[in-house]
Amino acid sequence: MAEKIIDPWGSELVSDYTKIVKDFGLEVFDSKLFPNPNRLMRRGVVFAGRDLKQIADAIKSKKRYYVLSGLMPSAEKVHFGNKMVIENIRYFQDHGADTYVLVADLESAATRGISLEEARKRALDFHIPAYIALGLDPKKTIFYFQSENLKVTHLAYEFAKKITLSEFEAVYGKADPSKIMASMTQAGDMLFPQLDERMPGIIPVGIDQDPHIRIARDIIRRTKTKYNFFLLSSMYHKFTPSLDGSLKMSKSKPEGNIELPEDIKSACNKLKRALTGGRDTVEEQKKKGGQPEKCMIFELYKQHLIEDDKELQKIYDDCKSGKLLCGEDKEYACRKMKEFMEKLEKGIEKARKQVDKLAFVK
Amino acid sequence: MAEKIIDPWGSELVSDYTKIVKDFGLEVFDSKLFPNPNRLMRRGVVFAGRDLKQIADAIKSKKRYYVLSGLMPSAEKVHFGNKMVIENIRYFQDHGADTYVLVADLESAATRGISLEEARKRALDFHIPAYIALGLDPKKTIFYFQSENLKVTHLAYEFAKKITLSEFEAVYGKADPSKIMASMTQAGDMLFPQLDERMPGIIPVGIDQDPHIRIARDIIRRTKTKYNFFLLSSMYHKFTPSLDGSLKMSKSKPEGNIELPEDIKSACNKLKRALTGGRDTVEEQKKKGGQPEKCMIFELYKQHLIEDDKELQKIYDDCKSGKLLCGEDKEYACRKMKEFMEKLEKGIEKARKQVDKLAFVK
Repeated sequence: MAEKIIDPWGSELVSDYTKIVKDFGLEVFDSKLFPNPNRLMRRGVVFAGRDLKQIADAIKSKKRYYVLSGLMPSAEKVHFGNKMVIENIRYFQDHGADTYVLVADLESAATRGISLEEARKRALDFHIPAYIALGLDPKKTIFYFQSENLKVTHLAYEFAKKITLSEFEAVYGKADPSKIMASMTQAGDMLFPQLDERMPGIIPVGIDQDPHIRIARDIIRRTKTKYNFFLLSSMYHKFTPSLDGSLKMSKSKPEGNIELPEDIKSACNKLKRALTGGRDTVEEQKKKGGQPEKCMIFELYKQHLIEDDKELQKIYDDCKSGKLLCGEDKEYACRKMKEFMEKLEKGIEKARKQVDKLAFVK
Repeated sequence: MAEKIIDPWGSELVSDYTKIVKDFGLEVFDSKLFPNPNRLMRRGVVFAGRDLKQIADAIKSKKRYYVLSGLMPSAEKVHFGNKMVIENIRYFQDHGADTYVLVADLESAATRGISLEEARKRALDFHIPAYIALGLDPKKTIFYFQSENLKVTHLAYEFAKKITLSEFEAVYGKADPSKIMASMTQAGDMLFPQLDERMPGIIPVGIDQDPHIRIARDIIRRTKTKYNFFLLSSMYHKFTPSLDGSLKMSKSKPEGNIELPEDIKSACNKLKRALTGGRDTVEEQKKKGGQPEKCMIFELYKQHLIEDDKELQKIYDDCKSGKLLCGEDKEYACRKMKEFMEKLEKGIEKARKQVDKLAFVK
């Protein structure tokens, strides 16, 4: 069973998304299920989910439902994975969802040893502004700190009785006290919106976070008599690959990793060294064409840098035909990255000034 | 190492207190260390502790220190073990300690599945009144519910990072998510009084609760840079034996167990069937004398029913000499138990009316 375990606190690679779907019993994501799917949904970056139909139905019939995500204030920067989560949250925000974004300060205290004071400072100064700059609509978002939400911690303690250590280890690979407390608290986060009104909810995450979802769904089944929570829905996006071609950008491989925000010179230098689908020589590439499906630059376009499907298609075709060479393409990627980073940095500056006005619930 | 493990959630027996002192590296309790030792201290029922001198010094030099204990609202009744804890708390209350008594509602939710609402109701209706009836001075006590004390839960999450699963299992024998959360929360309880002012604190408990103390002391050592907490002191009392002679009264053996309060007829019936140090025949007993050191009735006198040392000594001598026979002695024990239960029940009724006026801190 060990091969089936994904560690949400690690940075393992998932080399075969098809296998993941099968092993974890996920639904293959079908963008036709949702109205006006966003870029990530349209392009198969969102690739799987659980109980998606109840969310699609809620959107269709304008029934109440919620979307929720957390931010870890222990991180120094945000990353492209966060960006995808935020874009998916924004999709549901735009389609009627009650929206919750929590600062996982108790989790970062438990698993990273960050004090609550430090976590609060970082979240207000950087993470929340960055989330807003990346697309979160602050006016339609309910924010809270785990440490101030008694409903969440109370659920966490109650849930702890519902999971054995062996079950925890079967899902997470290994257990330690801090992971257990973090996991129970996440389950509390994901379910507390239903304390006031029973309703469907969706958690958009990277596939590495699925263990949290599975534990929460087990807990839902085991607290049916008392709470009768709606079974949580989830939606999984693929990782943004490291520029060297390994499957997930990670701080442990700084040369393949672009942080948000990052100095554009540094980012462009990394782009220039990125793995592409180029051939050994210019002549060969002009003759045979490039291989965009193997190119990390193209993956960045697809996931993040190019919104217009037609533009993306043109780049694909020009690469395939040998018309667009890698050097030129990397120059273009650098320009697109520059636009993106500048917009992000300005957005963070602007959002920082709004943080005082946000409504934090307790 | 397994033999060294005592499970605070189980009801194992400790057959050799001397061995326990050695195995766990405890200090043998010396009643001369403390001014006007109470009955339990004088009679060796309190048998061990950790870092007792810093508490004795605080009493002597009138420095600030604290005593703390919790109550588990999942229990239907209280028991003689609780009574000993309360008597020891009262001793420190009378000797200048800041006194904290907490309702372990998060722990009872985590380990027993009792809802917070139910826990609150039980604590106010029964456990707190019973604690007051057993001797706790409510005017000198700071009460709180774990679920309302954010400082405690915040410490619990922070502490989780300081203990590994293996260490937890080495101390507790086995781990599960609810025990882990309960243990971290107890460490939070025991240490939060030092957030405002660093000072010594003592936890009077049954020896079965020592794992919680050890984990908390490990955490203190590992959070030295940040908090520099005083190392916790603890004080251990022996168990009140089951009336059948096994070492600890337990609900799992109802015939040997007297609850507080319990219907006096039921209690006396149990006393009449109690194991004594009597001989096979009246003649033999008159000739050889009884064996009070083997008698559960005498142990009850010593621990709970007879305050006056001279009276206790007289019973011991009369038994030893063969003058006092078991039947007569059991009648007397029943009368003493009746006095005690009546006083307890009246005390609970009276204290119930005071509960509204207690100051619960948050």
